[in-house]
Amino acid sequence: MGDHVYKIVELTGSSSHSIEDAINGAVKRAGQSLRNLRWFQVTDTRGHIEDGQVTHWQVSIKIGFTMEDGG
Amino acid sequence: MGDHVYKIVELTGSSSHSIEDAINGAVKRAGQSLRNLRWFQVTDTRGHIEDGQVTHWQVSIKIGFTMEDGG
Amino acid sequence: MGDHVYKIVELTGSSSHSIEDAINGAVKRAGQSLRNLRWFQVTDTRGHIEDGQVTHWQVSIKIGFTMEDGG
Amino acid sequence: MGDHVYKIVELTGSSSHSIEDAINGAVKRAGQSLRNLRWFQVTDTRGHIEDGQVTHWQVSIKIGFTMEDGG
Amino acid sequence: MGDHVYKIVELTGSSSHSIEDAINGAVKRAGQSLRNLRWFQVTDTRGHIEDGQVTHWQVSIKIGFTMEDGG
Amino acid sequence: MGDHVYKIVELTGSSSHSIEDAINGAVKRAGQSLRNLRWFQVTDTRGHIEDGQVTHWQVSIKIGFTMEDGG
Amino acid sequence: MGDHVYKIVELTGSSSHSIEDAINGAVKRAGQSLRNLRWFQVTDTRGHIEDGQVTHWQVSIKIGFTMEDGG
Amino acid sequence: MGDHVYKIVELTGSSSHSIEDAINGAVKRAGQSLRNLRWFQVTDTRGHIEDGQVTHWQVSIKIGFTMEDGG
Amino acid sequence: MGDHVYKIVELTGSSSHSIEDAINGAVKRAGQSLRNLRWFQVTDTRGHIEDGQVTHWQVSIKIGFTMEDGG
Amino acid sequence: MGDHVYKIVELTGSSSHSIEDAINGAVKRAGQSLRNLRWFQVTDTRGHIEDGQVTHWQVSIKIGFTMEDGG
Amino acid sequence: MGDHVYKIVELTGSSSHSIEDAINGAVKRAGQSLRNLRWFQVTDTRGHIEDGQVTHWQVSIKIGFTMEDGG
Amino acid sequence: MGDHVYKIVELTGSSSHSIEDAINGAVKRAGQSLRNLRWFQVTDTRGHIEDGQVTHWQVSIKIGFTMEDGG
Repeated sequence: MGDHVYKIVELTGSSSHSIEDAINGAVKRAGQSLRNLRWFQVTDTRGHIEDGQVTHWQVSIKIGFTMEDGG
Repeated sequence: MGDHVYKIVELTGSSSHSIEDAINGAVKRAGQSLRNLRWFQVTDTRGHIEDGQVTHWQVSIKIGFTMEDGG
Repeated sequence: MGDHVYKIVELTGSSSHSIEDAINGAVKRAGQSLRNLRWFQVTDTRGHIEDGQVTHWQVSIKIGFTMEDGG
Repeated sequence: MGDHVYKIVELTGSSSHSIEDAINGAVKRAGQSLRNLRWFQVTDTRGHIEDGQVTHWQVSIKIGFTMEDGG
Repeated sequence: MGDHVYKIVELTGSSSHSIEDAINGAVKRAGQSLRNLRWFQVTDTRGHIEDGQVTHWQVSIKIGFTMEDGG
Repeated sequence: MGDHVYKIVELTGSSSHSIEDAINGAVKRAGQSLRNLRWFQVTDTRGHIEDGQVTHWQVSIKIGFTMEDGG
Repeated sequence: MGDHVYKIVELTGSSSHSIEDAINGAVKRAGQSLRNLRWFQVTDTRGHIEDGQVTHWQVSIKIGFTMEDGG
Repeated sequence: MGDHVYKIVELTGSSSHSIEDAINGAVKRAGQSLRNLRWFQVTDTRGHIEDGQVTHWQVSIKIGFTMEDGG
Repeated sequence: MGDHVYKIVELTGSSSHSIEDAINGAVKRAGQSLRNLRWFQVTDTRGHIEDGQVTHWQVSIKIGFTMEDGG
Repeated sequence: MGDHVYKIVELTGSSSHSIEDAINGAVKRAGQSLRNLRWFQVTDTRGHIEDGQVTHWQVSIKIGFTMEDGG
Repeated sequence: MGDHVYKIVELTGSSSHSIEDAINGAVKRAGQSLRNLRWFQVTDTRGHIEDGQVTHWQVSIKIGFTMEDGG
Repeated sequence: MGDHVYKIVELTGSSSHSIEDAINGAVKRAGQSLRNLRWFQVTDTRGHIEDGQVTHWQVSIKIGFTMEDGG
């Protein structure tokens, strides 16, 4: 483990099913454009309500990934 | 979308099953006396332990709803 | 100034014009159903964006008012 | 202990005597209109000063109470 | 409203005129390179002082936008 | 309920399955060496990512337990 | 730009007009007794309500200024 | 109530007796050199322990006072 | 004063009488099993309500003590 | 100094040597792909421990840079 | 990497030399009585001043370590 | 150790060399005009970047000192 530099991006995942599902969706989407994802941290847990029911779980996370050398 | 005013109330839901269930319970109870619920935000996640087991998930949320005109 | 008790409610005002306007709207709406409003404190300043423009300023405030005796 | 829902209200008590007295005043006032009060949490401790002396202790608390069924 | 993923970026807008103007500037600049901007949240309000006058309002905001599919 | 004293310890549970599971694991482990566990509070929700997938949910909690008399 | 030391003071400005005006008033007043003011940061935005209207915007700011050598 | 400017200073009072006493001591000391003290807010409550006993209550407060015109 | 290392433990004291009493109880209990207690810091002030009255003041504190050499 | 817009990115630098070194590494890496870096702010200081020794200092920082015109 | 449980303890290290040295001292001391230390996080950086000079750097850290099975 | 009152001032030290150096500079400057400095606490660690290099470490600290009797 050398002296790596990690970058942190913030995403909000959304799911009609569960908190874990909203996080999984955000991580999966981040993986489409970024490599070497390492960890996440939850920063906010919210949701959308319609007709008195939670319809979407919205979870904001910070995702850290290893930066590779170069520009 | 006109210049609405929203009111925010804080509730703690409790469930023996899961975090999502505790939130659903609080939203459902709020819907018994308030109309036009729009969103929630988790402010605290706690729980009760008995005999070394989590027996209740207790989740505090803020719920926002559209205020209607009048008093 | 006797030993008063104050109650604090949280509202979100919304305005297409300015932050002050969003707060004024929330205070005015609170005054329709509550008397003796005394102070407010901003807790969150957000906004809605459409077509790359801020269309609504959304400001959450806590409002304190003097509780009168009785139930 | 079933799956209860609790509501949380925020009050500021005021007393010329002590911090505990200000809290007791807020809890007593809340009990005039709400039943089943369960707990409180201090969120802010302030005071009013006149002629270089503390004349009022002002303590903001959140109070939780069990919601009963119905509207 | 399906299970979208939103990305959040942080910008600081600067204006010699007002807080709203600094935010509008940051949102407008973000819209030059990002599509589907949805909301912002103020994270810091600062300013630059010269000769005892505020010369620039500097407002940091987080901006959320819908991520499209693909890389 | 006399004038008890409670001690608070902080643990991080880890699970490949869910947030609740990570918390349950930490509570169960605490119960192996401590008696009279009463409550927990979530302080941080993180996770480990491998190959673009969440492989471990890591939840930090504070656990409170009643201290018994003596040393 | 040598190795300067800055001092930070906290003021609350008040205005019947706007948030910016309350900040301008505090900065102007600070400039009557302090030289080399450099920046400010908003720490609290509150206001006074009378007859259901915001009568004063009260904004607390920290102001930084360069300390000159000597005592 | 015109457009006043208030200054905020931070002090730590200390008392062998109580939290209120520590605050009273800090306010009294501030009043020796500053006029027009208006309010305080508690920012930290600590204490010193010797031989297993609390020997000093140390309470940090911010005190606001009206600035008069001039330098 | 050499290069000491201090350990910090967190306790919640409970008293039917006052905030200071709840803290004193927690410090006294800590002193039964730990030596060289040095300071405390209040992290949370809560209470239990029964029949509309505060029955227990519950104060959480961090206590620091000097670690002695060895295991 | 016109009405600039700044973007803020968050990175974690890592060094086996010191906190300053971890920050320098993150700033240097950011400079490989971004121009006009202006300031940083530390948001978290952590580290990795192996065999009872700190092997890596891990410092998270926010870095602000001036956005140039265009897309 | 199975479903481990980690415990977190809080220590304050002290050094007349540097911030890193204060942290190293706390980690080394923790390692005398605890095995499998994994990470630390800085929670507070303070210091002692005598005769207008910093004589001790005091850094509070949380240290996480893997709990082994059993009591 | 009688019932002292301490005052707390906030300064930002700046150094091209290190975080400790920036703090030492602020403490030394405070000692030019204030006696009986006792402790400091770091509140913010920032820095200035030029040509992709950290040119100044800027550390904000609160410094506490014993107030002497009188005005």
